[in-house]
Amino acid sequence: MGERMVIIGADATGMSAASQARRLRAADELEIIVFDKGNHTSYSACGIPYWVSGDVADADDLIARSPAEHRARDIDLRLRTEVTDIDVARRRVLARDLDTDERTWTTYDKLVLATGATPIRPPLPGIDAEGVYGVQTLDDGQALIDGLAATTGREAVVIGAGYIGVEMAEALVRRGFRVTMVTRAAEPMSTLDSDMGALVRKAMVGMDIRLITGAEVTGIRTGADGRVQAVSTADAEYPADVVVLGIGVRPTTELARRAGLPVGESGGLLTDLAQRVHGYDDIWAGGDCVEVLDLVAGALRHIPLGTHANKHGQIIGTGVGGGYATFPGVVGTAISKVCDLEVARTGLGEADALRAGLQFHAVTIESTGRAGYFPGAAPMTVKMLAERRTGRLLGVQIVGRDGAAKRIDVAAVALTARMTVEQMTALDLGYAPPFSPVWDPILVAARAAAKAVARGH
Amino acid sequence: MGERMVIIGADATGMSAASQARRLRAADELEIIVFDKGNHTSYSACGIPYWVSGDVADADDLIARSPAEHRARDIDLRLRTEVTDIDVARRRVLARDLDTDERTWTTYDKLVLATGATPIRPPLPGIDAEGVYGVQTLDDGQALIDGLAATTGREAVVIGAGYIGVEMAEALVRRGFRVTMVTRAAEPMSTLDSDMGALVRKAMVGMDIRLITGAEVTGIRTGADGRVQAVSTADAEYPADVVVLGIGVRPTTELARRAGLPVGESGGLLTDLAQRVHGYDDIWAGGDCVEVLDLVAGALRHIPLGTHANKHGQIIGTGVGGGYATFPGVVGTAISKVCDLEVARTGLGEADALRAGLQFHAVTIESTGRAGYFPGAAPMTVKMLAERRTGRLLGVQIVGRDGAAKRIDVAAVALTARMTVEQMTALDLGYAPPFSPVWDPILVAARAAAKAVARGH
Repeated sequence: MGERMVIIGADATGMSAASQARRLRAADELEIIVFDKGNHTSYSACGIPYWVSGDVADADDLIARSPAEHRARDIDLRLRTEVTDIDVARRRVLARDLDTDERTWTTYDKLVLATGATPIRPPLPGIDAEGVYGVQTLDDGQALIDGLAATTGREAVVIGAGYIGVEMAEALVRRGFRVTMVTRAAEPMSTLDSDMGALVRKAMVGMDIRLITGAEVTGIRTGADGRVQAVSTADAEYPADVVVLGIGVRPTTELARRAGLPVGESGGLLTDLAQRVHGYDDIWAGGDCVEVLDLVAGALRHIPLGTHANKHGQIIGTGVGGGYATFPGVVGTAISKVCDLEVARTGLGEADALRAGLQFHAVTIESTGRAGYFPGAAPMTVKMLAERRTGRLLGVQIVGRDGAAKRIDVAAVALTARMTVEQMTALDLGYAPPFSPVWDPILVAARAAAKAVARGH
Repeated sequence: MGERMVIIGADATGMSAASQARRLRAADELEIIVFDKGNHTSYSACGIPYWVSGDVADADDLIARSPAEHRARDIDLRLRTEVTDIDVARRRVLARDLDTDERTWTTYDKLVLATGATPIRPPLPGIDAEGVYGVQTLDDGQALIDGLAATTGREAVVIGAGYIGVEMAEALVRRGFRVTMVTRAAEPMSTLDSDMGALVRKAMVGMDIRLITGAEVTGIRTGADGRVQAVSTADAEYPADVVVLGIGVRPTTELARRAGLPVGESGGLLTDLAQRVHGYDDIWAGGDCVEVLDLVAGALRHIPLGTHANKHGQIIGTGVGGGYATFPGVVGTAISKVCDLEVARTGLGEADALRAGLQFHAVTIESTGRAGYFPGAAPMTVKMLAERRTGRLLGVQIVGRDGAAKRIDVAAVALTARMTVEQMTALDLGYAPPFSPVWDPILVAARAAAKAVARGH
């Protein structure tokens, strides 16, 4: 007798889990049903800013695998179908067809929650007005693109200065909008310490993005037609034909919570290392709707990123397929392109470290991405945190030009291996004049950090 | 009473050692004398191909710190002065001024050997003819540039297909020469396995470099004027107005050997982890004249690279200065630019692994350096070796375009941490569409390798 795997959510985690389970178990052994209320499968949400900017021509380019391709592999895909209830006692889910409004219960042997995350919409007057957009799903992206095409106005306001906000600000500039970014934070790119964020500010200002920092949005003014007209703070009002929300996202777990499944402080589902929901042998969860273990802080956090989502799907599919795989946790790596800058971080920033109870030495060094004499060598700033006394690497932030972003991977591996900054000074990193100075910027930072640790205090 | 530090060799290791020792001990505590038979200090030999190609305008650009700058820091620099004897019993060296032929003995308390390496010149007829150039020192580079300017011919032959040979071939093409490369190896870039080298061949052929592989040079024909005219193999003769030797280098240790200092199989000096020559408390050695510990193969090897040379200098200077530092070894990282390709390797190739007594699984995957849908995404090939049974990473080779070379650093750190390929599949590497697919090529390779290990045989 075959088993039935039911998956809620058809993006990275859900469809990776489906594909991997199918690889391990044929259709006569395992039936796979996937519900999603949207129209798309397996897409790159991270690509939306590049679709909006025009770098990527078509939404189809962002789709790694289409519904037809999944169906061809015996995956029963039910799009535009929203799961509204989970009945864990009877192992079944209630789904509603958004077009016909038909509701049906479907039983499962294995259930996978891959419900993702939802952009935060603060309860502001006007927040639901026409012309206010989140950018989380491909459908969100399509709505924004349609909205941009429809408006004749040229004023855009981005609320929030996380990496999605910053990438969207740039995309809107490239679409010909005058862009204002309003954020509570002191500097843009709130995933960085503010001294590093100041470098990003410079690049954004150079692109004529107006930056309003340290400011709380108090409301969104709408016209008689119900469309957005301006974004207000306590001090000022900024005209807006389009508003993009870049304040961050929250795990989409209302459904799971109603079913009694356990969530953590952030609202993300709690799972074991095999991505099974705590207390349930037959329910898995992964991607943007779960909390992940931050290996550096030693704490659970909500870090919604496509990389983790894909890995989770792989691990869940392996588990459901009868194999063995676990997700050990993350170190907090994130990279981004901002105008002509590359921005990267991994591990803990200063505030993260203090919150984790860690004391540290922080150093910041200036170097270049290529040998100093090589044509095109541009400055690169590296900030490194090392634990006091032990000298263990705690985190790295990099802002620079070519080769800055992916250099963070060296630190990500070193964090995973729990290296000290002294050990890092001996790393055998690649060197050739077009790609690096003979002392790679990461090594220069490690030497400075090791010196600070040795000096102590 | 002050001590005297004597250094033989004024490039990376020697001058880093001098600078670091000076930082730790003032001139009244430590006198520092540096001898070098050449004209330059602290230069980037790796930059010579880019100077020859014209990317770098001036030799001065390759000099990190000039003789005057060193002297201003109380370092007694004696250029054009060759050390011809070391008397370890009486702790003194005999040096000859190349201009005056004057010879003087200088005593030392601490001696540093930083004599570098010398291009291999096989004992071929014509090898010493005018128009045949090595490219190891800045003086070599100047001689070649002068030679290129002087000749009216347009035919260049590069002998050898290591990374210096390949970089020089490209530089000569850019200087307007017709370039033929002759090598014993099956494919160019002999630091790679031949299946990966074949990708480099394609790029070189695309640049109109004529590649003669599997061919042994039998002689160099010269004209009545004593100048090179052609390079001969058993089968053919290739016209040559200029010949560049890229066959590799040998540690320059005749002087040290005559003094009875211990060398290894390669002829490189043998040191302990603090870079002190075996059996001597007062003699240090580092850079291209020593053997280094290959942490993956568990063996001593001669790996002449600027990165190690600089680290050695730092460590020696710290030791002489009364501090503590050691060099744990290398994992064999090397990167290079070949035409529009980036080429990288770390750890062991197939032949290296077999020589080390290791059995392995090798996998090769194709991916891209950016998200597949992002403009400019170009193919990237990653080959990965994992030890049979343990699954420990043994080596990685990458050939691709933007971002291929420095991606090797992830593998270099993983090798240092002795990670398994299974552990690597969970690495939290940076992802953003302009810089990486959501599964970084390194992760794709690690997954394939982990699967091969799990399957076993």
